[in-house]
Amino acid sequence: MKKKQREEDKILLSHGSGGKAMSSLIKKMVVEKFNNYILNELNDSALLPASKDKKICFTTDSYVVQPIFFPGGDIGTLAVNGTINDLAVMGAKPLYLSCSFIIEEGLEMNILDRITNSIKTASKKANVEIVTGDTKVVEKGNADKIFINTAGVGVMQKDFLLSKKKIQVGDKIIINGEIGAHGLAVMSKRENFKTDIKSDCAPLWSLIEQMLSVGGVKFMRDPTRGGVATVLCEIAANADFGIQLHETDLPIHDNVLSFSEILGLDPLYVANEGKVIAVVDKDIASVMLKQMKKDPLGKEASIIGEITKKNTGRVILETVIGGTRIIDRLTGNQLPRIC
Amino acid sequence: MKKKQREEDKILLSHGSGGKAMSSLIKKMVVEKFNNYILNELNDSALLPASKDKKICFTTDSYVVQPIFFPGGDIGTLAVNGTINDLAVMGAKPLYLSCSFIIEEGLEMNILDRITNSIKTASKKANVEIVTGDTKVVEKGNADKIFINTAGVGVMQKDFLLSKKKIQVGDKIIINGEIGAHGLAVMSKRENFKTDIKSDCAPLWSLIEQMLSVGGVKFMRDPTRGGVATVLCEIAANADFGIQLHETDLPIHDNVLSFSEILGLDPLYVANEGKVIAVVDKDIASVMLKQMKKDPLGKEASIIGEITKKNTGRVILETVIGGTRIIDRLTGNQLPRIC
Repeated sequence: MKKKQREEDKILLSHGSGGKAMSSLIKKMVVEKFNNYILNELNDSALLPASKDKKICFTTDSYVVQPIFFPGGDIGTLAVNGTINDLAVMGAKPLYLSCSFIIEEGLEMNILDRITNSIKTASKKANVEIVTGDTKVVEKGNADKIFINTAGVGVMQKDFLLSKKKIQVGDKIIINGEIGAHGLAVMSKRENFKTDIKSDCAPLWSLIEQMLSVGGVKFMRDPTRGGVATVLCEIAANADFGIQLHETDLPIHDNVLSFSEILGLDPLYVANEGKVIAVVDKDIASVMLKQMKKDPLGKEASIIGEITKKNTGRVILETVIGGTRIIDRLTGNQLPRIC
Repeated sequence: MKKKQREEDKILLSHGSGGKAMSSLIKKMVVEKFNNYILNELNDSALLPASKDKKICFTTDSYVVQPIFFPGGDIGTLAVNGTINDLAVMGAKPLYLSCSFIIEEGLEMNILDRITNSIKTASKKANVEIVTGDTKVVEKGNADKIFINTAGVGVMQKDFLLSKKKIQVGDKIIINGEIGAHGLAVMSKRENFKTDIKSDCAPLWSLIEQMLSVGGVKFMRDPTRGGVATVLCEIAANADFGIQLHETDLPIHDNVLSFSEILGLDPLYVANEGKVIAVVDKDIASVMLKQMKKDPLGKEASIIGEITKKNTGRVILETVIGGTRIIDRLTGNQLPRIC
């Protein structure tokens, strides 16, 4: 027999009120789960240790992915990994996250429970602490179930200042694995399409830490919204070099390829959530690949292109059949609400 | 003649896409307005100077106020001041803000323009920099115009560690001015009620810096959601002291009093956005008041109560007519979406 839904199983406006209902929700969903000595103070702000001589890295992202649960993750996993990866690609060790919920009135409590469990699991896995947060509730119809914002604080690891300015002709472009999985996993759930594609959503810092220890990394980015193509276009934009991509070297799984054909999408523009694109010195590229392949998140690492003297400011794809195609930024997007 | 609304005057889903449309929106609405050397790098994260031996203070809030424009401010002013005040009451100097927008498709561009102008003005006034951000767009009907999240980073000023544990019997409770204005200003706009009440939304750091320089401050809080009553209840909860409030000393303006009577609200529970409650040593209370009154934000500062040995864990209001009333936390809230 189906359990009868009770009023107390749903989020009410009073849960965002600052009163007793909010306190008990936060205790149950946040404090008891994310439990750490900084958060537990429950002050208006979290007090973090001094960063000494290390620069601080600070970032934020709001997550509005629809649907909130998808193969390989959910909005909670994404809110943790997406933000810490923005720190990691800067060469910063992610340490602390804030977590702020905007919840639509009427959301089932067990959905919030699942999501906060995912946040707990993802932050433990990535070794970061949720130290401060906020909860707002808006009337039914004024949000879509739940939106999450996370901001992240990390510390720069000394001597690893990455910058586009360090990029030189001949440098190799490396990615840690297959592309397009996140966007298509979300789409498969949205379109109710049967496929075994799972989001690649994962925390990248431990892989990146190893990459930085090899040395020779000039610049990194995580190809999320807009995909690999958009990141490469941003790297090439206004630069005094071009980028040459080799289509044959692009790691794209068959299931991704066939589902994107059905949807009329180009996997190069599809969001990833566990990928890093690194521009590295050509002399260390093969050592770097070897090191990356030792990590579960780098097993399929490959060199997908290089920095060229020609085609200044542009990204050129050398196609499988030997032709070339200009890769440009899209005006809009193929996929809204993918993260 | 009314100017015809064009498609390009509205926010489209493509503005949140990661493509060219998003880039040009961010350039116009964010980079050119919030212009500073950290933000201008447009990296995935902002790189902040090391904090040396100073502890870092980190906080976040999402703003969902409805309506987004109200007498005395708007969601942009609120998103700046609300978050930096959370740092300030910890004794931290606010330095950096992130700013993340969730925008409903179809929002008029000039509304976003007004709001980002407010953010610019408020952050300049408070001497903080917007250093990183994010923009998401959701389909019409899946958000209410615009939600803003800001996270803030500040540095603790040495020797000013504020803590509930420092509070002692006899300490005085000070507030920097009249209460209830923010919540009622928002309600007046929502209910289309004619009144001259304006939100008290303001950045508190410069006042608080002066208060800390006087010394003797034990603990501070800004009485936002849930108002003065809720903050005092939180201070008293599980403590080995009580709090006595004097109704005659509560600074409440006549317009606030009469409008809250019409709405059936108690101003003690109404949100403020430019107020600080400080628990201070009784011996410095009068010096503190004098110092506070020199600041435009402290002109109406007053002692509203004290820490008592009796009524452990409770807040008791001594009423105008000489009786007493227990001030308890509300279960829900009087006013949803007030901030």
